[in-house]
Amino acid sequence: MNASEVAQKGKIAKEASRKLAVTSSKIKNAALERMAQALEKNARVIIDANSIDLEAGDKKGLSRSLLDRLSLDGKRIQAMIEGLGAVKSLADPIGEVLAEWDRPNGLKIKKVRVPLGVIGIIYEARPNVTVDSAALCLKSGNAVILRGGSDAIQSNIEITKVISDAAYAAGVPKGSVQLIHDTKRETAEELMKAREYVDVLIPRGGRNLIQTVVKTAQVPTIETGEGNCHAYVEKTAGLKMAADIVFNAKCQRPSVCNAIETLLVDEAIAKEFLPLVKEKLDEKKVELRGDTKACQILKGIKDATEEDWRTEFLALVLAIKVVSGVDEAIKHINTYGTKHSEVIITKDKKAAKKFQDEVDAAAVYVNASTRFTDGFEYGFGAEIGISTQKLHARGPMGLPELTSYKYVVHGNGQIRNV
Amino acid sequence: MNASEVAQKGKIAKEASRKLAVTSSKIKNAALERMAQALEKNARVIIDANSIDLEAGDKKGLSRSLLDRLSLDGKRIQAMIEGLGAVKSLADPIGEVLAEWDRPNGLKIKKVRVPLGVIGIIYEARPNVTVDSAALCLKSGNAVILRGGSDAIQSNIEITKVISDAAYAAGVPKGSVQLIHDTKRETAEELMKAREYVDVLIPRGGRNLIQTVVKTAQVPTIETGEGNCHAYVEKTAGLKMAADIVFNAKCQRPSVCNAIETLLVDEAIAKEFLPLVKEKLDEKKVELRGDTKACQILKGIKDATEEDWRTEFLALVLAIKVVSGVDEAIKHINTYGTKHSEVIITKDKKAAKKFQDEVDAAAVYVNASTRFTDGFEYGFGAEIGISTQKLHARGPMGLPELTSYKYVVHGNGQIRNV
Repeated sequence: MNASEVAQKGKIAKEASRKLAVTSSKIKNAALERMAQALEKNARVIIDANSIDLEAGDKKGLSRSLLDRLSLDGKRIQAMIEGLGAVKSLADPIGEVLAEWDRPNGLKIKKVRVPLGVIGIIYEARPNVTVDSAALCLKSGNAVILRGGSDAIQSNIEITKVISDAAYAAGVPKGSVQLIHDTKRETAEELMKAREYVDVLIPRGGRNLIQTVVKTAQVPTIETGEGNCHAYVEKTAGLKMAADIVFNAKCQRPSVCNAIETLLVDEAIAKEFLPLVKEKLDEKKVELRGDTKACQILKGIKDATEEDWRTEFLALVLAIKVVSGVDEAIKHINTYGTKHSEVIITKDKKAAKKFQDEVDAAAVYVNASTRFTDGFEYGFGAEIGISTQKLHARGPMGLPELTSYKYVVHGNGQIRNV
Repeated sequence: MNASEVAQKGKIAKEASRKLAVTSSKIKNAALERMAQALEKNARVIIDANSIDLEAGDKKGLSRSLLDRLSLDGKRIQAMIEGLGAVKSLADPIGEVLAEWDRPNGLKIKKVRVPLGVIGIIYEARPNVTVDSAALCLKSGNAVILRGGSDAIQSNIEITKVISDAAYAAGVPKGSVQLIHDTKRETAEELMKAREYVDVLIPRGGRNLIQTVVKTAQVPTIETGEGNCHAYVEKTAGLKMAADIVFNAKCQRPSVCNAIETLLVDEAIAKEFLPLVKEKLDEKKVELRGDTKACQILKGIKDATEEDWRTEFLALVLAIKVVSGVDEAIKHINTYGTKHSEVIITKDKKAAKKFQDEVDAAAVYVNASTRFTDGFEYGFGAEIGISTQKLHARGPMGLPELTSYKYVVHGNGQIRNV
């Protein structure tokens, strides 16, 4: 029997990863530069391949927003090229000595940062993720196996060919960047179980994709991106600031994971605050869905259902609940949240501390928009995703989050007696 | 329908974990002390429960070594008590500020160490793991759900009752330490999939247990403990030191994961070294299995099979392969190893560096026994296991490896414009 595509490419990636782990920053940076040049040079070919995908997507009846995410033009390719330049300019995390100590028996122990090895990225029909993932994995010394959505397959094949040839020409090991061409679901599942070849799997996309990966994978996985985020307006909050933060966190870009989906308001200020914030939200025609108390104050809005508390709307919809205080707010968030980003707006330092201590989320804000949960906004200079699990990495993941470590130990003949 | 045992206890553990995350070191330490006192006081009851397990195990035909691991006496209970004292004396990792910085927009970001939440520990019939796991999880602010091997169930029920009552009496939240009583396989599988309640799963035991957990789990898992470790004797090695290290790494405690299973010898010194090391290994009647070249030098030893290179013997058996140099040694290890602990014995600094750079393992030694891969030997003061995966933690895991972090961000009304 012939080896499957996953096994073939997995084996190549594993071999590439051994060499890439000891490839210099200079070569990795040269590769990123060559990749950018190659994208520039091959923009036409890539856009042509993309138009095949777009035509097929159109025939298949993909929604306008899906087609928009799929589509590439000169400007978007330019953005990819700029992204490569940004990754190139970041410090190489590999080889950093994280800790170093001597033991009484004379052993010298060093904890050294190393790549994860082979990273599998499973994502949707967004061709920009192809370049972005390849660049971040390469800079952090990892070989990558890409498995993009089937609707972008022609674009991805062309992009991967262009960037992997360029990387190889710059001296990076062959097979450092590979794409799974077969778009069957079974092949994706094989990748999720390929423990022999893949060290870590990172799904990048919406809830369904991530849940499928998390439930199917046998390879260690980092769960990313699902964000059922909340703003809690505590009774001492400056109401103008609170309304501005709620408006920003809901409306500035509603389709992203760090936008809020539910507003929790202290009952002591609900009567004053809710009409105020509604006036702002009405500018963007945000659909409001309230609990009983919110509906009594804001006549005519919809009733929120149990399901609404659990839903990441990713749209101009906001659920509203009136709560008795910080304890009820924390309880609601810990019950319905997805451990992504949460904010309290308050002037009370005790309430702020309690909220930050007890809310179980990657990022917990006082008096700032949840929209800041982002690798660039945190100053990491990159982001491969936002982890909502607690193992390995939490919140925005930059280059260091794409690494592991090893213990390098020097002795002079030490043996163990007990 | 009634909730299952896993769902019931999972829910309680989740609630307990919220409170435990903000429980003071003082209360956690008081709990560890009370647990020790309670074990002392209830030693008789525990030993009686253990004798029921031992009788059942004997009837069932458990091997002598399994019965030995299962068995408890005053001395072993004393060791548990001492273990609790040791964990108590360790620094509390929770609340540590791992990093702190301000952003140009005025946001103040802190990265703060927090517990993982609820940890599931799945282990074999070794009642000492019950106390040890409970202590480490509790000290690191995590609620724990224990699921031990069915052969130790009476012992575990009694021990868990004693220590969890004691912890509660000291002020730790109810349900911080729980045991799954149902020993059915389906119940263990339910625990492995209980994403709603369990944040991280740690299997502690042999290869079969760990592989089952890794393949079945939907909860993020830390793979531990399988060790197919190698010693490579490079051609410049001091042969006396090399023989001592090989002997120690193989014989000092052959049943543990950091013992070596295969010896790789440089062909330039094989004729001189192999008879020398055999003489030492013969003292312990180590069974040797060689490749063709090794068998030519050491007449009369068994032929090694392909399977032998893959096997963690955990016994006085050693596979031997003659290699052409450091490259072949690295390749063999990266093909057959389990990424645990590897050693090169050499005087050549370049060979040592190459080996440490290119061998993919948690701990890579120069001129010291692999037996040192251990939380206590590394100075961590504790160990919950030795990770052989690259996500989250690698090598010996102490208290900090049982934690995650959250970003705590302070603003004064910042909103995002792009």
